Amino acid sequence: MNVNGKHYKTVWFEDNKIMMINQNKLPFIFQIIACKNLEESCTAIKNMTVRGAGAIGVTAGFAMAQASMQITINNLYEKQLLNAANKIMNTRPTAKDLSYSVTRVLKAALMSPEKAYNEALSIAEENENACKKIGDYGNQIIENGFKIVTHCNAGWLAFVDYGSALSPIYTAKNAGKNIFVWVNETRPRLQGAKLTAWELKNENINHTIIPDNACAALMQKGEIHLMITGADRIANNGDTANKIGTLEKAIACKYFGIPFYVAAPLSTFDFEISSGNDIIIEERDEAEIIYAEGITQDNKLTKIQLCSPDSKAYNMAFDVTPAKLITGFITEKGIFTPQEIKLLCN
Amino acid sequence: MNVNGKHYKTVWFEDNKIMMINQNKLPFIFQIIACKNLEESCTAIKNMTVRGAGAIGVTAGFAMAQASMQITINNLYEKQLLNAANKIMNTRPTAKDLSYSVTRVLKAALMSPEKAYNEALSIAEENENACKKIGDYGNQIIENGFKIVTHCNAGWLAFVDYGSALSPIYTAKNAGKNIFVWVNETRPRLQGAKLTAWELKNENINHTIIPDNACAALMQKGEIHLMITGADRIANNGDTANKIGTLEKAIACKYFGIPFYVAAPLSTFDFEISSGNDIIIEERDEAEIIYAEGITQDNKLTKIQLCSPDSKAYNMAFDVTPAKLITGFITEKGIFTPQEIKLLCN
Repeated sequence: MNVNGKHYKTVWFEDNKIMMINQNKLPFIFQIIACKNLEESCTAIKNMTVRGAGAIGVTAGFAMAQASMQITINNLYEKQLLNAANKIMNTRPTAKDLSYSVTRVLKAALMSPEKAYNEALSIAEENENACKKIGDYGNQIIENGFKIVTHCNAGWLAFVDYGSALSPIYTAKNAGKNIFVWVNETRPRLQGAKLTAWELKNENINHTIIPDNACAALMQKGEIHLMITGADRIANNGDTANKIGTLEKAIACKYFGIPFYVAAPLSTFDFEISSGNDIIIEERDEAEIIYAEGITQDNKLTKIQLCSPDSKAYNMAFDVTPAKLITGFITEKGIFTPQEIKLLCN
Repeated sequence: MNVNGKHYKTVWFEDNKIMMINQNKLPFIFQIIACKNLEESCTAIKNMTVRGAGAIGVTAGFAMAQASMQITINNLYEKQLLNAANKIMNTRPTAKDLSYSVTRVLKAALMSPEKAYNEALSIAEENENACKKIGDYGNQIIENGFKIVTHCNAGWLAFVDYGSALSPIYTAKNAGKNIFVWVNETRPRLQGAKLTAWELKNENINHTIIPDNACAALMQKGEIHLMITGADRIANNGDTANKIGTLEKAIACKYFGIPFYVAAPLSTFDFEISSGNDIIIEERDEAEIIYAEGITQDNKLTKIQLCSPDSKAYNMAFDVTPAKLITGFITEKGIFTPQEIKLLCN
């Protein structure tokens, strides 16, 4: 996808290093980071230098391959592989793509580092192809003139390329449809205002940022025809974990009769859990709510305290939207209702 | 109410000046501002140095009285009074309390500046008394152990004293009930994180700040027993304009079966409009979304840009919650259902 007219991917492997766009500095600084070893790769996932279901998954796969290549003591190979797998698994608990990749690459790594690398590369390629197909299928539900709302960032920054929720929007734009995107700013980390807005600007898509609070009011005014979000983990019954606030918007969609779609590749589906009750919701540091980072008038990246001193804050990173609020899932295999996704298991 | 152990009111009249707590600098700087003339008083309302339905109303009344006292050319008295009334009316369109006060004090001012001053003073006293009674009535619906969520700031900072939505919470605390308050941070201006959290800390009420996005997720977890908000204008049928995001939370309350109450004095009720369709919703500058103010590590009040450059933002200050989502209205005359409020007309 485009960054100032040049094509980039979100994460890739080069000279034994995992290369990634530093998403903590966007949109103010465009910077590529190189993670040289397991420690650095895990930190990058944990502190959200790389974030978004698919991008985390691909990074985790590369991190597993990188770890396998860097093990020097042969008789500790398997033990150290499992250590690495554990370490990567524990960076972030909610995203299914992460455990999906670690499991796949671990299996290959048990054969050889070369096989691990090839497997990680396959995951990245599959991720990219799946997103492209999600764009093709999702485009079918977008009518000319639609105003679409999205939450958080499930664009190409959240994957290797194209994205999940934004991929249908890019495809619709390329197909010549006239579309407009309302961007929920997505507190506390403002991935909407910082990442999605930046992506859409680079792709020349008409858009406007709104406070998360304004979403239902715009639905009431008839200003929203469709909502599409990404997902971090989808249970067997269709219950879906996604960025905090998704549940509230999905309830509003139901109330106003607006279709609510979840776009995600099959790697985000967790067929081993029967419902959202089994999804672990990550709780992150209250500092993400209390402080915010941005640029001052003289262009310095600065962190400020927003909230009243001495008050605590509570930071659930995700919530679970029950399947009954979801109109459909846009996947690389087509669009499915919550009842139909069980069929995708094989 | 308490500020570092000392009693304050939000707005008062002294030596021909309207004195007020500067709410744009809270919670970081506690500062009293004096508005010496109509120009300064209108600016203070417009730029939200003073904000909150009741506080705006009382300030508008004082501003009208102040204007009447400062007219020096006798044969232009009536003309200049009407000019002043117009100017104050146009500062902010949504709040009913503002037009309520301007109309009342204008009538008195047409007789004499002294009568205007007394009328403005009466409005301030009535406002304070109404809020105290709202606390008494609202306390009846708060059970020991309740976790209550509130949106924006409808505490004493939004009135002369006590507040509307927070008044029942203060009364319940004083009655010895064990209560806890979830504070929606309330983007874009963060009145929850900045003002409500600061008020609750000063009143020793257990509370925690959450991103607006987390409200429904906490309801789903059973962490919220009751929601109470304030109001800016209530139509004859019970439709209620309040801070943007109220609608979304009210829909979530309905979905999860959580009682949703609106606390407001009768001065906020607009019996002349039949429904929320007739309420004018103020649109404010996009800069309130794009920039945020807070303190840096070295304690400097600083403004930073939060959002992606070159993206627009849309800033509706209020939304309208339909009466059918409202469990009841807590007023100084008791608690009423949306169907019953018509009876309050006289």
